[in-house]
Amino acid sequence: MISVEKALEIIINSGQDFGAEISVEEIPFLKSSGRILKESIFADRDFPPFNRVTMDGIAIDVSSFQNGQRSYKIEGIQPAGSEQISLKNAENCIEVMTGAVLPKNTSAVIRYEDLQISDGIAKIMVEEINHFQNIHEKGKDEQKGTKLIAKNTLIGAAEIGVFATVGKSFVKVAKHPKVMIISTGDELVSVDEIPLAHQIRKSNVFTLVSLLKKLHISSEISHILDDKVVLKSKIKGYLETFDVLLFSGAVSKGKFDFLPEVLEELGVQKLFHQVAQRPGKPFWFGQTATCKVFAFPGNPVSTFVNCLVYFYPWFFKSVGLKMEGKTAILSENVIFKPNLTYFLSIKINYRFGHLIATPINANGSGDLASLLKADGFMQLPNEQNEFKKGESYPIINYK
Amino acid sequence: MISVEKALEIIINSGQDFGAEISVEEIPFLKSSGRILKESIFADRDFPPFNRVTMDGIAIDVSSFQNGQRSYKIEGIQPAGSEQISLKNAENCIEVMTGAVLPKNTSAVIRYEDLQISDGIAKIMVEEINHFQNIHEKGKDEQKGTKLIAKNTLIGAAEIGVFATVGKSFVKVAKHPKVMIISTGDELVSVDEIPLAHQIRKSNVFTLVSLLKKLHISSEISHILDDKVVLKSKIKGYLETFDVLLFSGAVSKGKFDFLPEVLEELGVQKLFHQVAQRPGKPFWFGQTATCKVFAFPGNPVSTFVNCLVYFYPWFFKSVGLKMEGKTAILSENVIFKPNLTYFLSIKINYRFGHLIATPINANGSGDLASLLKADGFMQLPNEQNEFKKGESYPIINYK
Repeated sequence: MISVEKALEIIINSGQDFGAEISVEEIPFLKSSGRILKESIFADRDFPPFNRVTMDGIAIDVSSFQNGQRSYKIEGIQPAGSEQISLKNAENCIEVMTGAVLPKNTSAVIRYEDLQISDGIAKIMVEEINHFQNIHEKGKDEQKGTKLIAKNTLIGAAEIGVFATVGKSFVKVAKHPKVMIISTGDELVSVDEIPLAHQIRKSNVFTLVSLLKKLHISSEISHILDDKVVLKSKIKGYLETFDVLLFSGAVSKGKFDFLPEVLEELGVQKLFHQVAQRPGKPFWFGQTATCKVFAFPGNPVSTFVNCLVYFYPWFFKSVGLKMEGKTAILSENVIFKPNLTYFLSIKINYRFGHLIATPINANGSGDLASLLKADGFMQLPNEQNEFKKGESYPIINYK
Repeated sequence: MISVEKALEIIINSGQDFGAEISVEEIPFLKSSGRILKESIFADRDFPPFNRVTMDGIAIDVSSFQNGQRSYKIEGIQPAGSEQISLKNAENCIEVMTGAVLPKNTSAVIRYEDLQISDGIAKIMVEEINHFQNIHEKGKDEQKGTKLIAKNTLIGAAEIGVFATVGKSFVKVAKHPKVMIISTGDELVSVDEIPLAHQIRKSNVFTLVSLLKKLHISSEISHILDDKVVLKSKIKGYLETFDVLLFSGAVSKGKFDFLPEVLEELGVQKLFHQVAQRPGKPFWFGQTATCKVFAFPGNPVSTFVNCLVYFYPWFFKSVGLKMEGKTAILSENVIFKPNLTYFLSIKINYRFGHLIATPINANGSGDLASLLKADGFMQLPNEQNEFKKGESYPIINYK
């Protein structure tokens, strides 16, 4: 049995194809939010591209004001979206609108609030004017050619806005792995069936679909009964077609837990089986040349935890995304004796800039309802047995 | 000019139709993640529905063990997904698999690791057996009829798993508002055009589309030139067709900022214009009987901030979702003199359970690129001018 840290290291280092250039696709920029950028984005012009007026009012030549002039004849108007005009007489002014190009021969904008306008004359009512006030200077934010967004950035609303601004109507993003999610177990019936007394409805595959959807990965699902021959022939096909298989169940020591045996018979190289953790111990991980196989234990909480703890970081690594680890502060003492990493169900609250983690009472790895009450897990290391109120530990939140 | 708090109060209390029963739709459960549940979900059976074996091994009658017995003839096997069988002879045992129903007349499960099995006899190698060990007792997590998920819950992976478990193949969720996002301004050209020197590409509408997509709201977009007649006729149609209009631009004091005037002429009741904040001051908000109109200022950061600060909470209220406020701790002193609420661009980091907010240098509301470097805003109240390192304030994070 290996440690959580070792298991994660093996998974992360098992190699990924999805981060390579070969696994890049080009999509319309507006569909790219939530995806990972696979090219650098540069400023195609200065930001802003011209001396941009930031207040509605008038533009003047500051030197006239410094010479004591306060009243200005309005010589013309410069709306946003019009070609730059010029101030012809340095003792006149031009009315300017927010977003407009600053007219040639002007060097400050005075807003309407500081003016009195009548009969085509604007009178300045303030006693101080600064050079280039109310002007967003050409190139002040970013200069043409500057790298604005680095490769491997997670795309959000701000990136979408910048793609539009620099004219990137298509962007290169990481291709997502083709994932098949497979449940096993004769006790499972489908959602729209009424289970018999000894049966339960399938749920883990749907939980996994939803956890993957959060990463913008679409997946397929399949259910296989506990029959070794059928299991083997179906999995063989999946191994050839998909980049990743996620299993839930059939990895314990039971008589009908064929899965590890079947996978090895099909040539999947086992990298480990069983991790020193609770919940989620019987986790099996292996690979072929083209497919990663995450075989999670079938208990609902085990599947949930293992997807977050192992599949998520593997995916982030494979697409080149660096995720900052989060930590929170325990709200009460916790004792956990077994020599295992403990994934404690927690509820997270914000108090004055502190993340407070309150343990949620869970009845073991079968307690699906406990996942509703919690919003994350705290990872309590196996070297310790006592975890004190006020101490901070890593967390994984899923809400 | 009103305060941010007052503006938010007016928006929130302006009424919403989307939270009412009339605005509920029923969708397939697997498509419901990210949506808001509009019915309560109850346990259709006990959780778990039977005494469920949690370890592979054997089931025995504990009293035999207490009487000193250690070797048990294997009388039968109880796999997961099979009808419950009975232990016929109290001095025998039944092999049981994880997920199986506990056989009748048995009261503990001993895992394979603690057994030696040969010739059909299982020998127990441990000296202590507890009543009902390795059994997840019927109804222990939740009893039949218990409310598992309350109405108005945001649906995530855990909820999806529970829907499947209780057989909810369709669920009632809040209908989302029909939203039209409209940009104005003659200076704007489309993403695939090369702008002239005085033009820029449209970007705010796409930023808004992306911010709404995060809330699982799909929206439409439209661009109208600064022509009062065209503006008026188009907006008239939108007011009749959509639940919400989001504008970006044309709300300042400029000569071509027709929008507030046009909206009022079209019978949109103005609830306020201008809020004491930076960025985003010229924000205009109004309504008709069937449509809310958020008219945001056209600067990229202003639009971005205002969507997060005003549209997001309005939407949460309208669908019945309670969101916990977040706070973070300032990493350095900040001075802001104007009598305005200041939305400071920040980068957020986690350190030992503390959320640390580091100010990002931004060149005012036109600095779109600053949104890339930050991942949120800190809301600094207008009653103060100095904000000290170590103090905590509300944050809105968008990454």
